[in-house]
Amino acid sequence: MAHIQFEEGLPGIRGPMAFRPETAKPLNELAELLLRNDNSTLSRGERELIGTYVSSLNDCFFCQNIHGAIAGHYLECDISFIDAVKENYLSSDITEKLKSLLTIAAAVQKGGKKVTATMVDDARQKGATDREIHDTVLIAAAFCMFNRYVDGLATWAPEDRMYYVNRAARRAEEGYVDFDIHQ
Amino acid sequence: MAHIQFEEGLPGIRGPMAFRPETAKPLNELAELLLRNDNSTLSRGERELIGTYVSSLNDCFFCQNIHGAIAGHYLECDISFIDAVKENYLSSDITEKLKSLLTIAAAVQKGGKKVTATMVDDARQKGATDREIHDTVLIAAAFCMFNRYVDGLATWAPEDRMYYVNRAARRAEEGYVDFDIHQ
Repeated sequence: MAHIQFEEGLPGIRGPMAFRPETAKPLNELAELLLRNDNSTLSRGERELIGTYVSSLNDCFFCQNIHGAIAGHYLECDISFIDAVKENYLSSDITEKLKSLLTIAAAVQKGGKKVTATMVDDARQKGATDREIHDTVLIAAAFCMFNRYVDGLATWAPEDRMYYVNRAARRAEEGYVDFDIHQ
Repeated sequence: MAHIQFEEGLPGIRGPMAFRPETAKPLNELAELLLRNDNSTLSRGERELIGTYVSSLNDCFFCQNIHGAIAGHYLECDISFIDAVKENYLSSDITEKLKSLLTIAAAVQKGGKKVTATMVDDARQKGATDREIHDTVLIAAAFCMFNRYVDGLATWAPEDRMYYVNRAARRAEEGYVDFDIHQ
């Protein structure tokens, strides 16, 4: 049971967002800018994967499943590929640049000061730009917020992982602003 | 030295915000809504204190000092009072309701799942509303983002704590949107 009274049947972050639409607005705008806006040299799939990985480190079931499913949709891969990245991204089939960015994201999850100059230099050597490093840090930091928002209020999440996979295409298309919170 | 190139002389979060104004916009709107908007039954001072406490738990020097100074401005107390809250809020001179909310905020800082029904029940018994519990969780979660954004990019922060105290009145007045990032 959630810690406060939410409208029934809304999964994960949608409960608190319906409870408090004023704060939902900038939260969704931030997600749209970081994860979906086309003004980025990281693909949507790569950005969703960063959010998914941080959510798995934070043990947030809802976030890692919905964003993992959306990442899978963009990357045209199935859920086992996403699981392999979460389990050991260094041995998974992603670019060396993305691996170096996931190393930075994992450090951010532990705490801002855990990001080292060596990690940043390594990302740069693998081709990451300052903007990509910035966005990786902010995506990871933002998911440390979203995950805590979702779990800190003990929101409800469907247990069946296919629930998320089946909704990924629609979520990807509708984006994070101007969507119907009940669909 | 910061991990990426920021405009010189901008303290803390202002460096990355000037680097990427698009994402600064929803971040500042979120801060304004949570910390400063008058549509809240928690005072501005109480809300800034929640952010300050979480920032101290995350060991973020810039955030705990600027928000601590702003909290002190609103609460009309000096920096030693803020330090006493950070050191041991349970024995500090704040309301029982605020103590119960700081307990929830401290749990959120560790991880969303650390918030227990007992903590929430206790806050309710001390007079906290669902909306206040929601906002406490989101403020704490948001500072887990802001702190990681500031420290994850190794931003510069003035070491002199009076720097922040001297700017608190202006920061409180100007708010988190529509301010001159260079002032």
